[in-house]
Amino acid sequence: MWLAMPDERPNIQRLHAYVPGEQPGYRETLGGGDFGDGSVKLNSNENPYPPSDAVMQASRGRSPEALRLYPPADAAEFRQTAGKLHGLSAQHVIATNGGDELLRLLITVYCPPATDSVSAGGGIGMTDPSYTLYPVLAHIQDTPVTVVPREGDQFRLPADYAQQLNDAGCQLAFIVNPHAPTGQLESLETLRKLAADFDGILVIDEAYVDFAPHNALPLLHDGSENVVILRSMSKGYSLAGLRFGYGLASPAVIGTLDKARDSYNTDILGQAAAAAALRDQTYAQSTWDRTIAERNRLAAALRERGFVVRDSHTNFVLAAVPGGDQQSPDEQAKTIYEALKQNSVLIRYFSKPRLTDKLRITVGTPAQNDQLLRILDSVLP
Amino acid sequence: MWLAMPDERPNIQRLHAYVPGEQPGYRETLGGGDFGDGSVKLNSNENPYPPSDAVMQASRGRSPEALRLYPPADAAEFRQTAGKLHGLSAQHVIATNGGDELLRLLITVYCPPATDSVSAGGGIGMTDPSYTLYPVLAHIQDTPVTVVPREGDQFRLPADYAQQLNDAGCQLAFIVNPHAPTGQLESLETLRKLAADFDGILVIDEAYVDFAPHNALPLLHDGSENVVILRSMSKGYSLAGLRFGYGLASPAVIGTLDKARDSYNTDILGQAAAAAALRDQTYAQSTWDRTIAERNRLAAALRERGFVVRDSHTNFVLAAVPGGDQQSPDEQAKTIYEALKQNSVLIRYFSKPRLTDKLRITVGTPAQNDQLLRILDSVLP
Repeated sequence: MWLAMPDERPNIQRLHAYVPGEQPGYRETLGGGDFGDGSVKLNSNENPYPPSDAVMQASRGRSPEALRLYPPADAAEFRQTAGKLHGLSAQHVIATNGGDELLRLLITVYCPPATDSVSAGGGIGMTDPSYTLYPVLAHIQDTPVTVVPREGDQFRLPADYAQQLNDAGCQLAFIVNPHAPTGQLESLETLRKLAADFDGILVIDEAYVDFAPHNALPLLHDGSENVVILRSMSKGYSLAGLRFGYGLASPAVIGTLDKARDSYNTDILGQAAAAAALRDQTYAQSTWDRTIAERNRLAAALRERGFVVRDSHTNFVLAAVPGGDQQSPDEQAKTIYEALKQNSVLIRYFSKPRLTDKLRITVGTPAQNDQLLRILDSVLP
Repeated sequence: MWLAMPDERPNIQRLHAYVPGEQPGYRETLGGGDFGDGSVKLNSNENPYPPSDAVMQASRGRSPEALRLYPPADAAEFRQTAGKLHGLSAQHVIATNGGDELLRLLITVYCPPATDSVSAGGGIGMTDPSYTLYPVLAHIQDTPVTVVPREGDQFRLPADYAQQLNDAGCQLAFIVNPHAPTGQLESLETLRKLAADFDGILVIDEAYVDFAPHNALPLLHDGSENVVILRSMSKGYSLAGLRFGYGLASPAVIGTLDKARDSYNTDILGQAAAAAALRDQTYAQSTWDRTIAERNRLAAALRERGFVVRDSHTNFVLAAVPGGDQQSPDEQAKTIYEALKQNSVLIRYFSKPRLTDKLRITVGTPAQNDQLLRILDSVLP
C-alpha cells in the first residue's frame, strides 16, 4: 500500500527555477481578441518590429495535412537554409526548441552529475554576471558550476578565463557574446584564443549577435572542433513566440547532441517560419539597422540625463543610474523601475550584486523610446 | 593548448537514439508546394483526418505581435482549457513540447543517475514491449531501467508488476494504456490497484486513450497523488506536426515538474491550436468515431485473411501474419511489409523478439484501408 508522496531528487528540491521577464496582461488572448492595455514591453529584449511578411505567410500557409503528420524529425530544410546562410552545411546545424533547449542538450551530453566527478571537478563554467538560466540547467543536471567574476566596473572578461575553467576541470563553458547584460563585444581574436586555451567545449552564446558588427563564425569556418555557436530566432528575427533556436558546430558535435535530442523537438510551423525568416535577410537586416540607430540614440539620451551607459552591441542598453541628493543609486534604480512600471513601461531590474544600481532597457521603436524618456524626465530630479 | 576532442559522457557514447517511423518524401515542402508521391502513411499512428477548422483558424489567426513576443510561460489559457475539460484545475496540468518532453521531465525530476543509486536500485520501470523511447530517455539520464516482460501470447500485464517495481526500487514506472503496440486496455480497477501498490510515481501514458472506452481520470478525481496521466495532441487531435502534449497530476507533482521545465517550452501557435482543438470536442469525437469504425472493419478484414488480430482500443491494430507453406511467419511479415512499401503503403515492422511475426498498422481512411487490403490480397498466397 502506497503511503507517502515519492520525493523528487534532492537537487530538484533545492532548485530555484529560472525567472523570466514579467509578462503583463497586454497579450492577445489565444481565442483571438485585441492587444490590451497599451503596455510597452522593454524588459525581455524582444525585437520591437514584427516578423517579416514572408514568415507570416510561411506559418499561415501550412496545410491541415502539415499539422496532422509528424514534422521532419531532422528539420532538414531549416538546417540546409541555416547551413547555407552561414557558409556551412546542414550537418553543422542542430535545430532546437528555443536556444534554451540547446543549452540543456549541451549540459546533458557533456556534464556528468556531481557524484560522477567529485574528484575530477567538472561541470559548467560561466562568468558572472551572465545568463541566469545556465546555473539553473546545471543544477537540474546536478553538475558543478564554476563562476568566474567579470572584472571591475567594466565587467571585463578575465584574461585567464580559460585557465580558471581548466583548473576547475569544466567540460563545458559559456560566453555570451555580445554579453548580456552589459552589451559588450569580445573580439574574434579573444574568442579564438579562448577556444584554443580551453580544454572543454566552448559555447559562444550569440543570442544577440544580429545587432553586433562581427560574430564567431570564422572559428567554425576554420574548423574549430570544440566551439558551439548558439543562435536564437527570438531577438534578431522577431520570433520569440515561436521558440526556435539553433546550434552551429562541427558535424561530430552536432551528431552527439542529436542523439540526446527528442526526435521531434521542433514543430512544423516553427521549422517553416524560421526557415522563411532566415531567407528574408533583407527584412531582418532592416530591423537590425533601425534598432541599432535607436540604441545609439537612446544611449546618448540616457547619458545626457546623467546615466552611465556603455556602448552596447545588442538590442538593449545597461544604464547605471546617476543617483541624487535624496537617493542612493540603488534606491533610485528601484524608484525609476517602479515609476516606469506604474506608467505601463516595463524594463528589467536585477536585484543582484553589482547590478542593483543599473537598469536593463530593451531598445524599442522610436515612439516607445520617446515614451520611456518622457517618463524618466518626470521622475528624475 | 587544446588538443583532443572533449568526450561526451559514457552513457551518451553508448546511447542508441530512438528511431521514429519512416518519413517518406510525400511531405509538403516548407516553402509551400504540394504533397508529393501519393504514399499512404500507416506507420506512425497519426489520425487519418485533418485537425478541425477551429484549430486552423486559431493557428493562422495569430497576429505578427503574437510571434514577436515571448509566449505565456505558464501556458495559462491552454491549461485552463484542459483542466476544465477533464474536471480538474489548471494547477493539475502541465503543457509540454509533445508528450515526449513530459516523459523526459519526469525522469529528470524523479530518477537519480545510476551512480547515486547503486545500492538503492531505482530508476524507471516499464513492461516489454512498450514505447521504446522510455529506455532511451533513461539512458540519457544514466538511470537504471527495470524491464518487466508482458506474459504469453496475449502480452498480459503481470499481476505482480507493482511488486516487481518495488523490489527494484523504481522511482518511476510507466504503463501505456491502451497499450502499444498491442492495443489492449487495462481496467480502471487494475490501474487503481497498480497505483496503490506501487511505491513510486506511476505514469499512465494515455497517448491513445481518445480511441478507448475509458480513461484513468477517475484516479485523479479521487485524489491519487502518485499518478501522472500523459496526454498527446498528436493522435486524437490530429496535431502531430505541432508537438504538443500535456500531463495531468496533483498540483504538488505538477509544481515539481514545472521547476525543471524550460520557461518557454511551448510556443504561442501550439498553445493556441491545442486549446482550440480541446474546445472542439465535437469534431475530435467525430474523427475518433470514424477511426474506431474503420479499426473494427480493418481488424475483421485482416482476420478473414488469416491474420490473428486482437481487439484494439487504439487507432492501430497489431496483426500476426498467418505464415504459409513457403514462408515462416517471420519471413512473411517482412515480405508483406516490403511489398506494401513498394506499393507506397508504409506500416510498422519491429525487428524485436516476440514481434517479428507481427505488423502494426495504423487505421487510415476507408480508402487507405481498402488500398492496404488490395495490396495484401495480391501478396498473400
